[in-house]
Amino acid sequence: MDDDVPLILTLDDSGSSVSAPLNDVDREELPNENGGSYDVIHDASSPAAGDCCAQQSSARHNWEMNYQEAAIYLQEGENNDKFFTHPKNAKALAAYLFAHNHLFYLMELSTALLLLLLSLCEAPAVPMLRLGIFVHATLELFALIVVVFELSMKMRWLGFQTFIRHKRTMVKTCVLFVQFIEAIVVLVRQTSHVRITRALRCIFLVDCRYCGAVRRNLRQIFQSLPPFIDILLLLLFFMVIFAILGFYLFSPNHSDPYFNTLENSLVNLFVLLTTSNFPDVMMPSYARNPWSCVFFIVYLSIELYFIMNLLLAVVFDTFNDIEKRKFKSLLLHKRTAIQHAYRLLITKQRPSGISFKHFEGLLRFYKPRMCARERYLTFKALNQSNTPLVSLKDFYNFYEVVGLKWKAKRNREHWFDDLPRTAFLIFKGINILVKSHVFQYTMYTVVAVNGIWILVETFMLQGGNFFSRNVPWSYIVFLTIYGVELLLKTTGLGPVEYLSSGWNLFDFSVTLFAFLGLMALAFNMEPFYFIVVLRPLQLLRLFKLKKRYRNVLDTMFELFPRMASLGLTLLIFYYCFAIVGMEFFAGVVYPNCCNTSTVADAYRWVNHTVGNRTVVEEGYYYLNNFDNILNSFVTLFELTVVNDWYIIMVGVTSQTTHWSRLYFMIFYIVTMVVMTIIVAFILDAFVFRMNYTRKNQDSEEDNGIVLEKEISKEEVIGIIELYKRISAAGETAQLQKIVLQMDKYGQMSTVFLGRRSRTKSDLSMKMYEEEIQEWYEEHSRKEETQTPLQEPASASNSSLKPLSLRQRSQTVI
Amino acid sequence: MDDDVPLILTLDDSGSSVSAPLNDVDREELPNENGGSYDVIHDASSPAAGDCCAQQSSARHNWEMNYQEAAIYLQEGENNDKFFTHPKNAKALAAYLFAHNHLFYLMELSTALLLLLLSLCEAPAVPMLRLGIFVHATLELFALIVVVFELSMKMRWLGFQTFIRHKRTMVKTCVLFVQFIEAIVVLVRQTSHVRITRALRCIFLVDCRYCGAVRRNLRQIFQSLPPFIDILLLLLFFMVIFAILGFYLFSPNHSDPYFNTLENSLVNLFVLLTTSNFPDVMMPSYARNPWSCVFFIVYLSIELYFIMNLLLAVVFDTFNDIEKRKFKSLLLHKRTAIQHAYRLLITKQRPSGISFKHFEGLLRFYKPRMCARERYLTFKALNQSNTPLVSLKDFYNFYEVVGLKWKAKRNREHWFDDLPRTAFLIFKGINILVKSHVFQYTMYTVVAVNGIWILVETFMLQGGNFFSRNVPWSYIVFLTIYGVELLLKTTGLGPVEYLSSGWNLFDFSVTLFAFLGLMALAFNMEPFYFIVVLRPLQLLRLFKLKKRYRNVLDTMFELFPRMASLGLTLLIFYYCFAIVGMEFFAGVVYPNCCNTSTVADAYRWVNHTVGNRTVVEEGYYYLNNFDNILNSFVTLFELTVVNDWYIIMVGVTSQTTHWSRLYFMIFYIVTMVVMTIIVAFILDAFVFRMNYTRKNQDSEEDNGIVLEKEISKEEVIGIIELYKRISAAGETAQLQKIVLQMDKYGQMSTVFLGRRSRTKSDLSMKMYEEEIQEWYEEHSRKEETQTPLQEPASASNSSLKPLSLRQRSQTVI
Repeated sequence: MDDDVPLILTLDDSGSSVSAPLNDVDREELPNENGGSYDVIHDASSPAAGDCCAQQSSARHNWEMNYQEAAIYLQEGENNDKFFTHPKNAKALAAYLFAHNHLFYLMELSTALLLLLLSLCEAPAVPMLRLGIFVHATLELFALIVVVFELSMKMRWLGFQTFIRHKRTMVKTCVLFVQFIEAIVVLVRQTSHVRITRALRCIFLVDCRYCGAVRRNLRQIFQSLPPFIDILLLLLFFMVIFAILGFYLFSPNHSDPYFNTLENSLVNLFVLLTTSNFPDVMMPSYARNPWSCVFFIVYLSIELYFIMNLLLAVVFDTFNDIEKRKFKSLLLHKRTAIQHAYRLLITKQRPSGISFKHFEGLLRFYKPRMCARERYLTFKALNQSNTPLVSLKDFYNFYEVVGLKWKAKRNREHWFDDLPRTAFLIFKGINILVKSHVFQYTMYTVVAVNGIWILVETFMLQGGNFFSRNVPWSYIVFLTIYGVELLLKTTGLGPVEYLSSGWNLFDFSVTLFAFLGLMALAFNMEPFYFIVVLRPLQLLRLFKLKKRYRNVLDTMFELFPRMASLGLTLLIFYYCFAIVGMEFFAGVVYPNCCNTSTVADAYRWVNHTVGNRTVVEEGYYYLNNFDNILNSFVTLFELTVVNDWYIIMVGVTSQTTHWSRLYFMIFYIVTMVVMTIIVAFILDAFVFRMNYTRKNQDSEEDNGIVLEKEISKEEVIGIIELYKRISAAGETAQLQKIVLQMDKYGQMSTVFLGRRSRTKSDLSMKMYEEEIQEWYEEHSRKEETQTPLQEPASASNSSLKPLSLRQRSQTVI
Repeated sequence: MDDDVPLILTLDDSGSSVSAPLNDVDREELPNENGGSYDVIHDASSPAAGDCCAQQSSARHNWEMNYQEAAIYLQEGENNDKFFTHPKNAKALAAYLFAHNHLFYLMELSTALLLLLLSLCEAPAVPMLRLGIFVHATLELFALIVVVFELSMKMRWLGFQTFIRHKRTMVKTCVLFVQFIEAIVVLVRQTSHVRITRALRCIFLVDCRYCGAVRRNLRQIFQSLPPFIDILLLLLFFMVIFAILGFYLFSPNHSDPYFNTLENSLVNLFVLLTTSNFPDVMMPSYARNPWSCVFFIVYLSIELYFIMNLLLAVVFDTFNDIEKRKFKSLLLHKRTAIQHAYRLLITKQRPSGISFKHFEGLLRFYKPRMCARERYLTFKALNQSNTPLVSLKDFYNFYEVVGLKWKAKRNREHWFDDLPRTAFLIFKGINILVKSHVFQYTMYTVVAVNGIWILVETFMLQGGNFFSRNVPWSYIVFLTIYGVELLLKTTGLGPVEYLSSGWNLFDFSVTLFAFLGLMALAFNMEPFYFIVVLRPLQLLRLFKLKKRYRNVLDTMFELFPRMASLGLTLLIFYYCFAIVGMEFFAGVVYPNCCNTSTVADAYRWVNHTVGNRTVVEEGYYYLNNFDNILNSFVTLFELTVVNDWYIIMVGVTSQTTHWSRLYFMIFYIVTMVVMTIIVAFILDAFVFRMNYTRKNQDSEEDNGIVLEKEISKEEVIGIIELYKRISAAGETAQLQKIVLQMDKYGQMSTVFLGRRSRTKSDLSMKMYEEEIQEWYEEHSRKEETQTPLQEPASASNSSLKPLSLRQRSQTVI
């Protein structure tokens, strides 16, 4: 270990400041055992002090363990994993590492998906995918065994005690157990029984590492439930009162089928809440007495326009509150994780910070894909004081900095700067042209004209053979213009810069698709014809013109991941309901099934002959069935949209019992919850964003977090040597390239730009700036009373708690 | 004028502090011309200094003018009237006073209502209210003449220049002109022509003084329009793209009537946006190819679930912003009004504040109904320093204080404290009983049991003779319990305290109604039977139990006035559309009218005989017509609820031209705007309230603004003498009563409580506390640069601008 002493010294030295004198580089300082500012990291600095060679290697091993544990802490902080699931010994660590990599995650995900997809082939199967019972039951058993394996790895990592305490895992185990028994029963009996428990298969998906967002959504939904239920009760209360009132008022009218019993009255008012039967439910009584409309107007005003909006308001309010609390707890959790990691990385001799060597060791475990150059830049970006060590205060920014993508700042403004003079002038001209407003607005005009053209053209051809064999000339003209624009932009800006803008990428792909469409037209390829209709999407470019749209579209893109996870959450609910629906209502609805019910027309399918023509009267609603999982999903979507959902409900009810209504009503309430959450989410995100824009009117144009760092040649050489000493010279290829580059241009230093897109968390950080300080203070006060917080002065006790893993590992190995 | 010098001195003296030594009362101080702290208000203090008797009386007259103008300023500040409409001379003032009292306002309102109600009797009239053309045209002319009179008064007050500049008034004048001509034409021709302009009659209502809230709503709606339209364009853009796409995809399917032309495609996607034709529009293509559902799912996800919510978000955000700006401008407007009034009330000699005499003079004009006691209490409440003058800083609180209702603080805790001992003990016992938790929860249980009882009872009687002749015993039992409760509470708390709580009032009226219902049952009065069904409303009491409900219900009550004004705004839109609808679509829809359209079933009315029974098949939709204004309103409400609105649209369209769709689509968009505003309003109000509650967790229980002031006997006597001097002794009756009361109980002073309910403005004041200071500073900086603001030191120039009215009046009179 002594051999890397001088290098680290050098590194520390040059790392302290870019403008450090060059002659410092090769000067060797002797280790200062008294703990000076440039301490050698020495055996004594490793937690277990020793002297001989074996101890040296053990010390290095210990350091490796420290790095790994610190990396695990940081990962736990990032993923919001609770620290009580932290691996406690070497065996647990091995299991932890096994269970925490993308291969394992993928296995988890694919098993879960396999289990979910099985319902495509099971009993009421999609016709084309039907499998024998033996086949799908075996597949299921196989998948379940994989889940057992995953769970056993988890148990190994968590230990039995923690495993039992971890609620989600326990639920998963129980579901697994039930599923196992049922799969065996199916295999033995060779026939499927009523397996509603299949609805629980979702838990395997929800528990996947990759579905963290879904879990968060579910948690948020459950947290929003109490106020939601409160208002729901108010809603139901008024519904009951109006049902009684309606029963008394309208049941004397025998031509009114909606209020003849209290049950009907209740059900119809429930449906009325969704407005789905609106004018119809009023009509019989309205025909008898025009003033009876007052009942319905009052009911709708109270229930639909007031309480339903109140519901949204309450959920929105709760949502806001939860978002903020979640942000706070995540922030503090990350902070704690950083503190834990920090304690593991500082040495007894230098308790005031982390040296690059240890930081590099941490990053090797935390982000193995990072190259040496990026590691060093991350270190420099963190290190805001001019010391060779990263203090705890600097280290707190770890998560913000580690995500940056580093790139050398281009000295060349354009890609064509190196070309000969004539070419340069031509490209420069093109560059100026494509950046000019005239060019942009010309293109906007072309797009607008094109849009109107398409509209008029489509309006002119009224049905029939609109895909004539000859390609319309307008199509070719516009496509040529777009092609020229694309060419000009690509040459003027350079392909890399051109494609780095999302809008250009959009233009490019639309033009490409349009070109494919032209091909399809030219070669009469029927299946491709629908690409033609993508043309109008180019009109979206027009929306770039106005700031509000840019804002809206930016928000849209920022929302997208979260929206997708909300959509997935909704799909999981769909899955549960689809399974239950299939078990109870599969095959219940068919053409002409419901001739005795009030919605007979919607299910009618009559094929009769009028004169000499065959007339087909189709009600089509028999298509909205639960005959297989895909049909169920479509049916559930129709129920989500709510309009005319009662026709589906009445159809199914007329073929089964009137208790089936419960299924539909519960589904309505569940989707109402999820939909309200989605609305609240969009509202919150948008309002948040607008407030942010208002608060930072000046910085509205920047689109991401950018950090600039300068590195001198000596630093780079120092790092290369450091890597050589720790026999990881293979990682320095990029660094050597930098040195070569610097030599070529005769620079003494290179500027690097770190860039990443802005996340909601960054916005929140800025919005709650003041409050965050309070939270930190409150948190550290709490910490101090519980466990004494790491302070530079008392750093010698840093070996107290976080070292537990290594200490135990020594006893085990 | 000299004769009231000592009294004011006394008053000033004792008014300076309640604990002023008693022997000060009758001491007379001589006027100190050098401007001491107790200056006599003397001729010299009046703006026009003089000596002789005539001048004295003119000075008093000048003061009266000042009071009146100050009161007008304060009224303008309160009503958010712009100051450029301030009456500029005595003639204008006379007109202003004529046009600003409740009699005039009522005339305005009733004329407007008369004009609006005329449409009940005009051409497509409500059958029972049909009037001859001569009658209703004469009525209309009469009402219009009244409006002309009102407008001429307004012109007299504003002056021609300002009158022309005032936009709303000008629009009103134009509408009036058109209406006048049309009314005369109708009278001459003795037949109604197409009078769409009748839709403009709303402006007469909107312009009423009492409809200020509606005007504010309209302004807010118009201010929210630009962002709304932006997002609407985005929505329509996607709609057009999907319409083209849908046309290309589905028009080859000849059994699909929804996409056979581009126009149909557009219209059906518009209707799909409202979900009103949802599964139906998908069914033909879904039956042919199951994957076509993807088109509809994507469309609905983008349009309905994303952009529509974005619309809400944008409107909500704008709404928030507007609310805050409105609050700010109103606050600053009020402040300016107070400054104007203040300048009119201070004297040259004592520029540091307003004395009670002048304050009293102001209040005589500002709130003529206020009694002398309340005036003095208001003065005391404003005066926070212990000087006899109200400084500008104190005077800024004018609007918050002037609304307080003053009541002497009761010395007696209960109403029965004066009763003999035995009675006292009995009532005390009852008082403790009704206030105990046991009693309350017992009552809750009774209410709950009653609720369940009613539900079960109603469930048991399935239709038919449920109003049997014998009164059910359960009804009597529960009513007895409620009666006893009511009796106990009234005796235990005293009728006044009992009825001061909203919930008790509610209990009382419900019990009373239930009793009336019992009467109705007992005496077989059929028409009263529906009162029975009000019983379950008592269950609302159960919601008192939980804090969230109390919050929600409180918010509901706070929202109510605003909701009502929003409802009225919606009604005004309804009126416009109803008139247009009646002019174009009256009599268009009738049974079996639309047999060629796709919605023929909904309009069918067939009376055919099956076997020996007559079966009536009723589609009922012919009832949703525009045959008179009441029917139109119901039809428009159905369009607002949106479900199945396209049946009405298709029905009307099939009988007229396909341009009729525009009417329905525009109506949909207009109601969408108003409804979105309503949702935004409820959201905003609720979230604001919740934030307020969170911010003031401690003070959540208080329900209003309460202020306490103590008045000593000397002060009261002083005021009485003051009033005697200004020969307004008639107003002192209440004051003398206070003195008598004090004498009776031997008190030297009485404590008065000022109380008013909390308004949104009070909440906002607290929420924006910090920002308000900034606004004030910014405002006063702006003021200083424009017109030098009144400052105590430079008060001598206070006679500069605001005195214009009096100066001019002197030249005119």
